[in-house]
Amino acid sequence: MEISRPLRYARARRRNFVSELMEFIRFPSVSSQPERKDDIARCARWLARHLRQIGLDRVRVIPTPGNPIVYASWLRAPGRPTLIIYGHYDVLPGEPLPQWRHPPFSPIIQNNNLHARGAADDKGQLFSHVKALESYLKTSRALPLNVKCIFEGEEEIGSANLHSFVARNQYALRAHAALISDTRMLAPDRPAISYAQRGGLRAEVEIFGPPHELHSGAFGGAVHNPALALCDIISGLHDDDGRVTIPGFYDDVRVWSDKEREFMARSGPADQEILRDAKVAQGWGESGYTLYERTTIRPDVGVNGIAGGHAGPGVKGVIPTRALAKVSFRLVPDQDPQRVAKLLCDHISRVTPPTVRSTVRTMSPVHPALVDREHPAVQAAALAYKKGFGALPVFVRSGGSIPVVNTFQEILGIPAVLMGFGLPDDHIHGPNEKFHLPNFYQAIETSIWYLAIASRLRQANLAREPQKEWSA
Amino acid sequence: MEISRPLRYARARRRNFVSELMEFIRFPSVSSQPERKDDIARCARWLARHLRQIGLDRVRVIPTPGNPIVYASWLRAPGRPTLIIYGHYDVLPGEPLPQWRHPPFSPIIQNNNLHARGAADDKGQLFSHVKALESYLKTSRALPLNVKCIFEGEEEIGSANLHSFVARNQYALRAHAALISDTRMLAPDRPAISYAQRGGLRAEVEIFGPPHELHSGAFGGAVHNPALALCDIISGLHDDDGRVTIPGFYDDVRVWSDKEREFMARSGPADQEILRDAKVAQGWGESGYTLYERTTIRPDVGVNGIAGGHAGPGVKGVIPTRALAKVSFRLVPDQDPQRVAKLLCDHISRVTPPTVRSTVRTMSPVHPALVDREHPAVQAAALAYKKGFGALPVFVRSGGSIPVVNTFQEILGIPAVLMGFGLPDDHIHGPNEKFHLPNFYQAIETSIWYLAIASRLRQANLAREPQKEWSA
Repeated sequence: MEISRPLRYARARRRNFVSELMEFIRFPSVSSQPERKDDIARCARWLARHLRQIGLDRVRVIPTPGNPIVYASWLRAPGRPTLIIYGHYDVLPGEPLPQWRHPPFSPIIQNNNLHARGAADDKGQLFSHVKALESYLKTSRALPLNVKCIFEGEEEIGSANLHSFVARNQYALRAHAALISDTRMLAPDRPAISYAQRGGLRAEVEIFGPPHELHSGAFGGAVHNPALALCDIISGLHDDDGRVTIPGFYDDVRVWSDKEREFMARSGPADQEILRDAKVAQGWGESGYTLYERTTIRPDVGVNGIAGGHAGPGVKGVIPTRALAKVSFRLVPDQDPQRVAKLLCDHISRVTPPTVRSTVRTMSPVHPALVDREHPAVQAAALAYKKGFGALPVFVRSGGSIPVVNTFQEILGIPAVLMGFGLPDDHIHGPNEKFHLPNFYQAIETSIWYLAIASRLRQANLAREPQKEWSA
Repeated sequence: MEISRPLRYARARRRNFVSELMEFIRFPSVSSQPERKDDIARCARWLARHLRQIGLDRVRVIPTPGNPIVYASWLRAPGRPTLIIYGHYDVLPGEPLPQWRHPPFSPIIQNNNLHARGAADDKGQLFSHVKALESYLKTSRALPLNVKCIFEGEEEIGSANLHSFVARNQYALRAHAALISDTRMLAPDRPAISYAQRGGLRAEVEIFGPPHELHSGAFGGAVHNPALALCDIISGLHDDDGRVTIPGFYDDVRVWSDKEREFMARSGPADQEILRDAKVAQGWGESGYTLYERTTIRPDVGVNGIAGGHAGPGVKGVIPTRALAKVSFRLVPDQDPQRVAKLLCDHISRVTPPTVRSTVRTMSPVHPALVDREHPAVQAAALAYKKGFGALPVFVRSGGSIPVVNTFQEILGIPAVLMGFGLPDDHIHGPNEKFHLPNFYQAIETSIWYLAIASRLRQANLAREPQKEWSA
């Protein structure tokens, strides 16, 4: 199959591709807000219709107990490898809205960047592969290999139903590798393949004080303020060295070899790069590790949100009845999120003073994941980058969690090829999220190249056992 | 002047008085919410019209840079003492609304209690005196002494403009004592006169982290989370003995004699009573002091509200850009709120780590206040209680702040007679605030008696120097 025709097609149609992506982005498909249920459903139907239009065969919107999975396949390349292409069409909320220069679901283009919620995470990256498939199908009426697309709608809330979907359909979903673009490059000319992701666990720690708000004059000093108690408990989660104090928390944290840490030091970002991306002057965290290590091979616990009492406009002299912290853990091999959940519950219950009451709700457990850098399907991605972006990728670890990597590795026994097209300053999860349009164009070409290169891999090589317990 | 006629009048018209009070309460005159400005103005006009209708002479709605002061006087008792009657028609917000069994500004009567925001604090108590004046004016066309009513609309936000109003009009406002009912009794049959109030200071402590929200996976562990930093700072405000750690905070705290502490132990509530009123099982605070002492002669710092990041429904894996705590101090003699403000600012700036930035806004400084228990105008209140409630009052200290007490003592040189008609379980400042209707009726009669008893005091005795530096 000629690769120049799909590449030419993709180049000629960039403008159309961008308009279509903007259409895709306009759906406020926020998975964490129940009131967006209809938008999620409309977005899924739109995506399915689009996949049908570009020529994929078996397109379905598959209901789940949560948000639907959009599935499509093209399996007419007998003897060729089968590739799963995974992405997610759900996004995070746009809030805090005042910090956006433009409404989050009204995409606009400025300085060659497409600004909107979901532009990079993950609609833009997902769409790069869709446009690569279209470029083949519209020019050759065929793909160079077999493809199964799985686009889910619950990634931002922990992929609750994807795991069981894959488990139930593990025969139908057989494949040789899964291609996932939901990570980032180091710079527009420095592509990156993620070979490790942290796991995660979310928890809501809530402290209950008096059953009614009390006048802080009448009772202040004699009744424990639940916001003070919460601050004590949250503050106590770290010691002065930035280490997490929960007993047993580090028991299962893997100690990496000097060789792997040296590889990381060579390939990963320097402290200054991380600080520049974050736009902060000074790093923070566990002493004894670089910032890159702190965000990848070391676990972390932070607060995504905190609330209690009357913090809005106006003054209210009260002892609140309760205070809440939304806590989020980032976990590393070989921590088990379920065990961390138990350690946290035990810890909070132990440190809660008798003057207040506490509850802990844990949710969204995600195992940390590792991918074999040497797997042929991963190496194919390196070659594709070289073609699409003119540079070989660096292999980096990601600090975030991509639950589906574990799902594919554990259930299907295939490696996840994490080919990121985002940039460090894309503000994913924040206001004014963007996707750099030149990256979009090069991502499409890289995907076209990947399909071509992967189609020539020998299935025997691909089938090698994924090294779940891969070590440095 | 015959006292039986106003008393009979008041008894006969209880039902009308309650409907009028409900009308007064229906105005959502929330001083801390700018959008309630019109409601404040309408409430002030309603009150002024009402004061005119009952027969007061010189009724005016006096504008201030903030909310208007409703003034009324009756000065046709030459040779008799002059009494200021103070109250406030503004109220706290109704929020959190879901915790109210009925909307806060739709008063309803249940079990002889009038439920609504402001029922006890302070519309109901203020109105008790209005109805006492009416009972005289409608039966005798005269009052037994001279009266100047000052009803302000900014008490709940620190009485910002009252002080300068009194200062500018100190000649016109000359009086022998000020009667204030904005405190509480110990029980329906245990009246109380407050002879000490704590001062106060509010502060907003805000911590700033990264300029944009950051993905907590990508940066968690390497960039300081401002909510964590805020928790550290707030947690650090107390040591393990419940003492405030701000250097210099206790320097000016007056040490009371054993005699005064014994008087307090005899007259004030026991720990168990305070815990029962608060509906909590266990006390908290500075060791070495009873709960009554902790809420009256010991200073306190608490958190009225805390907020940061995404604490609402849905999940957002971010490092927030900022976190805020609304902190409130309760101060005691001889602490100076301005000095405490400086100590706090210095302290926060000293303990803020270099990884985040902090700001402190202080506001609403109120000096602590003491009233001479032996002053004839105060003793007159004791006798009036005996008549109205059938029991002599106990003398108690209040934990809250009543800025006007200082204003009257310092500018006009007169004592504030703090005759409370609220009850400990009135939930003032909280949801389901109520005013016990039997207390309303007895308060009116007590006020009728007070006007009669105070009218017979000799001005020479009244004019004694208020003991600002009164000591135990």
